[in-house]
Amino acid sequence: MSTIKIAITGAAGNIAYALLPRLGELLLDLQASISLRLLEVTPALGALEAVRMELEDCAYPFLDEIICTSNADEAFKDANWIILIGAKPRVRGMERADLLRENAEIFKHQGKSINQHASRDAKVLVVGNPCNTNAYITKHFAPNLPASAFYSLSMLDQHRAYAQLAAKMSIGCDRIENLCVWGNHSATGMYVDYENALVDEVPLLSRYNDDQWLGIQLQDLVSQRGAAVIDARGSSSAASAANAIIDTIVTLIDKDPDQGRFSLGVVSSGEYGAIPGLIVSYPCQFEADGELKIVKDLEHSKSGKAKLEAAFAELAAEVDQVRAMGLLSAS
Amino acid sequence: MSTIKIAITGAAGNIAYALLPRLGELLLDLQASISLRLLEVTPALGALEAVRMELEDCAYPFLDEIICTSNADEAFKDANWIILIGAKPRVRGMERADLLRENAEIFKHQGKSINQHASRDAKVLVVGNPCNTNAYITKHFAPNLPASAFYSLSMLDQHRAYAQLAAKMSIGCDRIENLCVWGNHSATGMYVDYENALVDEVPLLSRYNDDQWLGIQLQDLVSQRGAAVIDARGSSSAASAANAIIDTIVTLIDKDPDQGRFSLGVVSSGEYGAIPGLIVSYPCQFEADGELKIVKDLEHSKSGKAKLEAAFAELAAEVDQVRAMGLLSAS
Repeated sequence: MSTIKIAITGAAGNIAYALLPRLGELLLDLQASISLRLLEVTPALGALEAVRMELEDCAYPFLDEIICTSNADEAFKDANWIILIGAKPRVRGMERADLLRENAEIFKHQGKSINQHASRDAKVLVVGNPCNTNAYITKHFAPNLPASAFYSLSMLDQHRAYAQLAAKMSIGCDRIENLCVWGNHSATGMYVDYENALVDEVPLLSRYNDDQWLGIQLQDLVSQRGAAVIDARGSSSAASAANAIIDTIVTLIDKDPDQGRFSLGVVSSGEYGAIPGLIVSYPCQFEADGELKIVKDLEHSKSGKAKLEAAFAELAAEVDQVRAMGLLSAS
Repeated sequence: MSTIKIAITGAAGNIAYALLPRLGELLLDLQASISLRLLEVTPALGALEAVRMELEDCAYPFLDEIICTSNADEAFKDANWIILIGAKPRVRGMERADLLRENAEIFKHQGKSINQHASRDAKVLVVGNPCNTNAYITKHFAPNLPASAFYSLSMLDQHRAYAQLAAKMSIGCDRIENLCVWGNHSATGMYVDYENALVDEVPLLSRYNDDQWLGIQLQDLVSQRGAAVIDARGSSSAASAANAIIDTIVTLIDKDPDQGRFSLGVVSSGEYGAIPGLIVSYPCQFEADGELKIVKDLEHSKSGKAKLEAAFAELAAEVDQVRAMGLLSAS
């Protein structure tokens, strides 16, 4: 029986708490077990111990070991899957530049550690925000791994878009396809591409053609959903974020072309005009040979193109800002 | 496609938050969907709305509808599965009598509502503590449903026992069988029956025979585990409790004799000396015909018998106390 080594950062946080009990879903039909490496900052190691206790109390037959540590090198050693959740949250009054800087330092450190210690087949999913740029920084400092090994979470935005459209049309989410979210996981840098979406296998726009709602309200509902959940819940999305992580990794393990398109932050080769090297959310799909591809040749209206350009520009500006701070240099 | 109606109380609480995203696991291979009815007290309806938002944002294809309500009759209407999590927690300085009384009133009200409104095939799993006695009260006020429809959660105690023994013996939980927890879900009223447990299909006692550890320390570790998690986490077990709920209901839906014995609070017919009618945790197993049976003819040492007697006496005393308060009368 093979063992999958999974490293998770921010492991005492709310998203990890919702995620960890669901890791068994990643095993699909594999006869495999999991070795878990939970990374936290030192002050959170006490809380992490409680997480370990509850995981033990799930009596999962597939859970080989649980390593709790504040040492990134130990957490990432030989890891096959790395889920980077821990990040500095933006607090009231904080400038976006400060947010970028503090997180850049975290992900630089972790990228270097991954570069040295992770399994050479490791896949890295970045969840901590700003997740696209954090994934870029991690990739930048882990050049010994292929650039295609670095992803940022976009599935939560996609699920939010499906949920909103399904509610608006009074249909189930399972009747919607190809409603992908492009660009940046940010309030201003994402585009919900309704133009290429299908409902009941025909173009959405042939069934529902309210440009005002699709082009403006849907965009706002999805990009503001995180804030709406915070308002209602008093803390940020955890269960739904964890669910999106599970769905993303299951998709990446399963490699099923029949699943169709899904949204994922991947390294751009310049598709649709983004700057190559950036981590951009694109509609992705598995080919029959199990290779992950960005879906090509999708058409967009003028306004759709403008949204994409703005999203790509925002992503480039974030990386430029981090570079200008000197945080992409090796030392 | 059939729809399973699931009602959950305490739906804005931490256990429900960990449970709700996992309800899809209950569908097994069934082609079914879920209609969800979430019950909360009125002051928690705002927090419940945030739960609804996040469930929507999971874009589950199997989730037909989410009804949020503070009206028990609406929540339980035609429900097939009812998971009673909401209960008054014991706060510092509170007498156990007060805890019994306040919860008796909740479960009396809910029992009456279930009696009138739930599907006649409903199964009711009580999680809110004191869960055995709360299940007894619910059953008492729902005489139109068979007594066998009422369960209390015991799987969390069983999982805790498996985890402790596995750690002690440095083995995986999957090598342990029949380590069931009997009696009451309380610090003083449970018995971890190591005498009938197997490891690698042979009696545990033939492999590990430390009576001191098994008879005393293991018992304390399991019965005090909830308190230990509270100490470490600052709040009570949620993820592990939710996991035990999932495992219990999957087991009850699956009806697989090959799963072997598991711990469950069920109505006693006097097995092993308990007072008939009480909800007692016993080792249970499914027969080949899909009938749930309490495992018969298990042998216990003198000290094991004493533990069982004490557990049964505690359960009887709780119900007597509730009866003495007049809370089992119809009005």
